[in-house]
Amino acid sequence: MAEQPELTIQGWGPTVPEPSSAADGDLSGSLPKAARRYLSRELGWEPRPTPPVAVADIRLAPSRLPEQARVRLTHLVGEGNVRTDRESRLRRAGGKSYLDLLRRREGDASEAPDAVVLPGTTEETAALLSLCSELGVVVVPFGGGTSVVGGLAGIDPDDRPSIAVDLARMSSVVSLDVPSSLITVGPGMRGPQLEQALDREGLTFGHLPQSWEFATLGGYAATRSAGQNSTGVGRFDELVARMTLATPSGVLELGHPPATAAGPDLLGVALGSEGTLGIITELTLRVRPKPASHAYEGWSFRSWAAGLAALQQLARYDLLPDVVRLSDPDETRANLLMAAGTGARALRGMLKARGRDDGCLLILGWEGLPAVVRARQKCAASLLKDDGAIRVGRKVGESWKSHRFAAPYLRDRLLDGGLLVETLETAATWTALPTVYDAVRRALRESLTRGGRRPLIMSHVSHGYPTGASLYVTVLADRDDALPIQQWLTAKRAATDALLGAGGTLTHHHAVGADHRPWMEREIGPLGVDVLRAVKKRLDPKGICNPGVLLPE
Amino acid sequence: MAEQPELTIQGWGPTVPEPSSAADGDLSGSLPKAARRYLSRELGWEPRPTPPVAVADIRLAPSRLPEQARVRLTHLVGEGNVRTDRESRLRRAGGKSYLDLLRRREGDASEAPDAVVLPGTTEETAALLSLCSELGVVVVPFGGGTSVVGGLAGIDPDDRPSIAVDLARMSSVVSLDVPSSLITVGPGMRGPQLEQALDREGLTFGHLPQSWEFATLGGYAATRSAGQNSTGVGRFDELVARMTLATPSGVLELGHPPATAAGPDLLGVALGSEGTLGIITELTLRVRPKPASHAYEGWSFRSWAAGLAALQQLARYDLLPDVVRLSDPDETRANLLMAAGTGARALRGMLKARGRDDGCLLILGWEGLPAVVRARQKCAASLLKDDGAIRVGRKVGESWKSHRFAAPYLRDRLLDGGLLVETLETAATWTALPTVYDAVRRALRESLTRGGRRPLIMSHVSHGYPTGASLYVTVLADRDDALPIQQWLTAKRAATDALLGAGGTLTHHHAVGADHRPWMEREIGPLGVDVLRAVKKRLDPKGICNPGVLLPE
Repeated sequence: MAEQPELTIQGWGPTVPEPSSAADGDLSGSLPKAARRYLSRELGWEPRPTPPVAVADIRLAPSRLPEQARVRLTHLVGEGNVRTDRESRLRRAGGKSYLDLLRRREGDASEAPDAVVLPGTTEETAALLSLCSELGVVVVPFGGGTSVVGGLAGIDPDDRPSIAVDLARMSSVVSLDVPSSLITVGPGMRGPQLEQALDREGLTFGHLPQSWEFATLGGYAATRSAGQNSTGVGRFDELVARMTLATPSGVLELGHPPATAAGPDLLGVALGSEGTLGIITELTLRVRPKPASHAYEGWSFRSWAAGLAALQQLARYDLLPDVVRLSDPDETRANLLMAAGTGARALRGMLKARGRDDGCLLILGWEGLPAVVRARQKCAASLLKDDGAIRVGRKVGESWKSHRFAAPYLRDRLLDGGLLVETLETAATWTALPTVYDAVRRALRESLTRGGRRPLIMSHVSHGYPTGASLYVTVLADRDDALPIQQWLTAKRAATDALLGAGGTLTHHHAVGADHRPWMEREIGPLGVDVLRAVKKRLDPKGICNPGVLLPE
Repeated sequence: MAEQPELTIQGWGPTVPEPSSAADGDLSGSLPKAARRYLSRELGWEPRPTPPVAVADIRLAPSRLPEQARVRLTHLVGEGNVRTDRESRLRRAGGKSYLDLLRRREGDASEAPDAVVLPGTTEETAALLSLCSELGVVVVPFGGGTSVVGGLAGIDPDDRPSIAVDLARMSSVVSLDVPSSLITVGPGMRGPQLEQALDREGLTFGHLPQSWEFATLGGYAATRSAGQNSTGVGRFDELVARMTLATPSGVLELGHPPATAAGPDLLGVALGSEGTLGIITELTLRVRPKPASHAYEGWSFRSWAAGLAALQQLARYDLLPDVVRLSDPDETRANLLMAAGTGARALRGMLKARGRDDGCLLILGWEGLPAVVRARQKCAASLLKDDGAIRVGRKVGESWKSHRFAAPYLRDRLLDGGLLVETLETAATWTALPTVYDAVRRALRESLTRGGRRPLIMSHVSHGYPTGASLYVTVLADRDDALPIQQWLTAKRAATDALLGAGGTLTHHHAVGADHRPWMEREIGPLGVDVLRAVKKRLDPKGICNPGVLLPE
């Protein structure tokens, strides 16, 4: 197994941010001047340095793992694979939500596990879970640590000691079945490694979420991830053909490709289980030939409603391409202003000349066989033009593609300057989507407007389906330096109540975690929660598996 | 609700077979002479009249439903909706497998329910289940009665009285959301009714299994049905966006379109639950615009291996059309011989002239937007030609389409003449499929060959996926008139052991029922069975919901 770069403790990316850039807070290194001015004006925000505390100053309680437990765990997985050092524990403390980052930046690592354990096989993992069940030790699976919903919170109502089970040692290709387009891998493997392994065979997997550089395949499965190309290649859960789930009660081998009618779908129960039933120790995924043709393009709509109507038409005729991103007017405007370079200036000019400077930008990304892509692109173009869209060229599409993983890096810089920066997401039917959009925006605006300060709420559709689409919302606001966590929790609560009330799903691809669990009963009903509890009881009778997430208390 | 034709008690189709045709057993009305001669020679079969007993002579035990229970059920659903008359009970006795038909033809109706109850709403169904739970009455949901795996067996280890819950009163359109491509319907609706309702809006659903004329939408969901167009439009379970499941413990509202990451998939637990968790009382399905273009065509391959290799290539590049049916040499030969008319003769001549009379026929059916269909068809043709396929024209494709629902009607005629006629099905990865094919054929051949008699085993791939395909096997043999049930049970056991051993799924689209439940533990493992039992225990604590199917005893 090759060593993979670890995420920095207080932010995104493999390296620690330079103290100088963090300290000045004027963002000169990362935001064009026009963008800073724009944000200041829009938000009523005064840029100011709000740097994180030094890593050495993060407070970490001593490990509560009993010595006897440490010895038995070590006996099981070997010396060196049970770690209680400060660095190991800090790196597995929580995920990368705004609240996670706020806490780590303030020097709070109370979510850190008492130890980090690295099993090497399915059998070892199963034995580990059985042992922890016996010892009363809580287990939180750790892949890339990229959760943005508190998926690694490690909260336990009984306050038992907890370990992070890091899957880094199980990150290799197990087997490749080229005729069946199936690859079997360890759960700790990351996207770039997987693509590298497939590239040699002329294959690709094609799952590209924003967290792609760091997130693991096991994590995608545990949280029902969707990638930027998922409209075309499918959601991650649709690409899992087989899965091994180690539980405190034994090992489940799930899934039987290509398809089965043998009863309820137990693979679908393990997908999205977020570590509450056990730990994913092996995955078989559907791969595909590398596409011969790539065509990324931009379109502009006069309005959000016109853009949605056009996407709905494409969806209805199964004409949505691999990548679909429709930005609302607020996001379109901000993206154009915040993008540096002559390309962005030229595009702004072009849109202004055609009366579209307050319009909505749509990115479409087509991949596949050239003749099929051409035919589909042509049919789609004809529908889009019927809906009043104008083509704005390939450059904007290519530009989006080249910045596809940039947002979480930028977030750190914005946090350095005193901003609240968070995202949330949902999905709804085409009929409900406009109502959900209005409701979320209203809730966020009302919650985050105070004394000359107001939020910037930027939304886009990032995944389309015949029956509806996702909605992804980015919120920027002047941070309340006195009560920053309370400020966001209040806004998030209002937004979630609003989107559920309007018919949206609790989450489209970020998962439930600790952050969404208070709404889980509203999402699936009390009897639905009871069914999940019955499954958990059978597999994890002592409740040691990630007790702080998914199921309401 | 419009009255729908009911299936005949002893066979297929809405009308009782004419006694004269049943009595002569020479099949002159339904099989060309050449086909009869061919079957006689291949099977060592002597055509002989083996007609069913008269319906009036079918033995039916008196209803065991306690009078007090009848009164309370009547109080709940109303007079006329609790039926204990002979005709009502006989019509809900079991399904339409070969074993079902053998029993009914011999005058055995021991699977008949003690009463037939017709609830009208979700609330009534939930109250009914709760009442039956209290009374200790077994409940078997009844839709179209078309199960071919003993799904309606009504077996109960505690031998409690049983009722069939007929869903005919819940068979209307509840709502239609055109922008979201979603229709909400009652579970008792059948395919033709649904298509009629959608046709008015320029829409279609497109799920077309062989049982389409009689099967219900609730039944498709409960059994994870696949239709003849499912390679293109998707399996039934993929088209269910929402479902209401009434259980003895309350009502579950499942599914949240278009997609959600909110935990395990409970909708996927209800799909394929075969009545063991409760009764489906409402379904929301994804519909689509009626395709503007239809192109059905035939291709011929030199061998089964070449045909499979070609399909695998199409699948790999997502080029499989809506309908895919590749027949093996035995099925190709039998179909060509058994098809009457000048078209079939011309095709036989053409194939012979090109040295393909022992080849494999492939039917492809393309539907959708004309330009997209053309581009995909062209790409596919190029791959098929690379694999040595030759095009045999549209007529053979159109002919298949016009006979798509014919097989179960023909089966009755073959049963009348002393034949064993049954089908079984599985699916496997492309890599495992040839082994599964060989193993199943060998097992059936060995089991059904005795004293100059041997089976005719005809196979086809009917559903393709990127990772593998289904395999559908039709078996004809001279019936053992002394022990016909034992003859098939022995062959079925051998075939099932063989296909599981070679890596096939227990079922691809027929479901588990009573017939496959002995293998369910082998399919999903003992811990998997325990998880399903835990779910059932929570929803159906008294075990009244279809106890004879799915879960092993």
